[in-house]
Amino acid sequence: MLSILRERGGLSRAQIAARCGLSRTTLSEITGDLLARGAIVVVTTDARERAGSGRPAELLALDPRSGQFLGVDLGHSRARVAVADAAHEVIASEAVAYPPDSPWPRRLAAGVELVERLSREQGITLAALQGIGVGVAGPCPADGSRADVLAAFAERFSAPVIVDNNTRFAALAESGDTIGASDVLYVRLADGIGGGLVVGGRLVPGARGAAGELGHVKIDPEGGLCRCGKRGCLETVASVPPALAAAGVRDLEELAARRDEPRVRAAMDRVAGALGRVLADAALVLDPEQIVIGGPLPHAVPAIVERAGEVIAAELVPAGGPGPLIRAARLGDDDGARGAIAACCRQSPLLDDYPSLSGNPS
Amino acid sequence: MLSILRERGGLSRAQIAARCGLSRTTLSEITGDLLARGAIVVVTTDARERAGSGRPAELLALDPRSGQFLGVDLGHSRARVAVADAAHEVIASEAVAYPPDSPWPRRLAAGVELVERLSREQGITLAALQGIGVGVAGPCPADGSRADVLAAFAERFSAPVIVDNNTRFAALAESGDTIGASDVLYVRLADGIGGGLVVGGRLVPGARGAAGELGHVKIDPEGGLCRCGKRGCLETVASVPPALAAAGVRDLEELAARRDEPRVRAAMDRVAGALGRVLADAALVLDPEQIVIGGPLPHAVPAIVERAGEVIAAELVPAGGPGPLIRAARLGDDDGARGAIAACCRQSPLLDDYPSLSGNPS
Repeated sequence: MLSILRERGGLSRAQIAARCGLSRTTLSEITGDLLARGAIVVVTTDARERAGSGRPAELLALDPRSGQFLGVDLGHSRARVAVADAAHEVIASEAVAYPPDSPWPRRLAAGVELVERLSREQGITLAALQGIGVGVAGPCPADGSRADVLAAFAERFSAPVIVDNNTRFAALAESGDTIGASDVLYVRLADGIGGGLVVGGRLVPGARGAAGELGHVKIDPEGGLCRCGKRGCLETVASVPPALAAAGVRDLEELAARRDEPRVRAAMDRVAGALGRVLADAALVLDPEQIVIGGPLPHAVPAIVERAGEVIAAELVPAGGPGPLIRAARLGDDDGARGAIAACCRQSPLLDDYPSLSGNPS
Repeated sequence: MLSILRERGGLSRAQIAARCGLSRTTLSEITGDLLARGAIVVVTTDARERAGSGRPAELLALDPRSGQFLGVDLGHSRARVAVADAAHEVIASEAVAYPPDSPWPRRLAAGVELVERLSREQGITLAALQGIGVGVAGPCPADGSRADVLAAFAERFSAPVIVDNNTRFAALAESGDTIGASDVLYVRLADGIGGGLVVGGRLVPGARGAAGELGHVKIDPEGGLCRCGKRGCLETVASVPPALAAAGVRDLEELAARRDEPRVRAAMDRVAGALGRVLADAALVLDPEQIVIGGPLPHAVPAIVERAGEVIAAELVPAGGPGPLIRAARLGDDDGARGAIAACCRQSPLLDDYPSLSGNPS
């Protein structure tokens, strides 16, 4: 229904019902709820066009200035926010820089101020927010800081808040349009290796909030010592620092520039091989629809995705039939706020009330 | 609400509403639906106890003879069925043997006849069935046989049917009581190795219906040839035939009897080590609440579970905090019908209508 109104506003309940294939009773319940939340508005009636004498029908549309979902990305050196309407379309976004590695209170204050400014300057109403997603760089913050995040946003904007790490929100954003998502195994190769799982259109948090930690799967019992204390984790081979060292280059720019040289190619083949084996094993367990590889390392050397894909396909051959789609991430590192919106859209009580809208194909 | 009625029948709507903390309007909607489905019945009114002159209130109870969920387990050599009421309690069950490896039509006919006999002899009504789960031995049957299963049960009993393999249904049954389930990674060591994942209280099917295939995770690139065509799969080490061969025994009985002898212990340590490494990697990806190890091999040598648990714990140490609970399966191989009931309870449209009853903690 929301996507019908997104395409064309100013429809009567009867017109919407006919296009959705819903009964008028069901549709009236839904529109009543959406009107109460401020997600849609009555724009006019059809009194002028109407030939007969019956009561004029109200024409409904999405409220183009009513923010329903707020996404906030508190990165290492900048905050970014985005606001989406009831149809999950981003209607406003903005970013602000702060000094790298600013302390938590500073980042939080910057995020809240940015949202307030956006609302004021672009005339976005936040009175009917259904949910706020706050993505943070690195692992999900410890209980204390997490409580600060929740308090800062929940109290200021009176809406439920979801806090998680940006990588997991990115997994959700990669899983497809917020309405109609697919199962995704997502991995991100950066200074560390993080990942996320989307199953049935929802982010899998894990029992301890640690699902998707592909970086610490062991690929070589004799391998180098990992910062986690184990030996031979994927992160000791396929994160940015060991990949640069193996290729004999200083930084990602040099890596990208020299990626066709034999030594660099060989090093990146080893990265892709290790990554492919870990992803293949994970794919045997999860049977995902898509495997998405993101982060600055494959951005510098796109061939990593292709070569890892060959390894995965070879390992999955016996399963028969078409394997998962293996692809590079579509969204850049700046899209954390969009991922956070995806997270709160999926978890929204509005969608829970109407399972058919939740995009869960199961 | 159902668990309140399971504990004590003969309550009025007002009494139930007070105990559930639901509004009377919401409760009336739910009870109306349940009465229409035959899940609950009006047992009497409070007219005799009533002091005042108001209209007597109807007292409601679960219908103890009304089957709401039917579980069917079509094994290699016997069919087993179980019927549960609206509160997911098993109210009747029965099994019948057929010659090992009977063809599909024979197994299906045996299952349907068994259900009919159970209904007739124990006075169970099947008119209001909400769902039927049919578990089959081995991989989920191919499209043709699957259609036969669906047709045989759906047409005969006029209810939606879920077909899947028994191992996955067992994973669901192990994930806890049907109301209030936890995330489980389940593996079963038998002639082959199968597994299943439960996330957010629901079975994860996977994009191609192949989630949980832990048996074909590679543990040794130089290892023995697997029936899947790859080398060194977990199944080439930790399924029953290679485990018996490594221990130098003929069958599971002999294995159980000689499990404390050095050669057998050493062989089982290798099984547990390989299993532990595969489960540890899967646990890094999934972060489950519980890892459950079932099937005839750990049944014969329970120490496999303990030793695999030590390997998993060592691999997960860096994650910090308490790891997953690692335990032997609670339900035996005869509990497939119960798992099938768990599956259809979780997927039931009744529960989808009332998300708070679905047992999904997210």
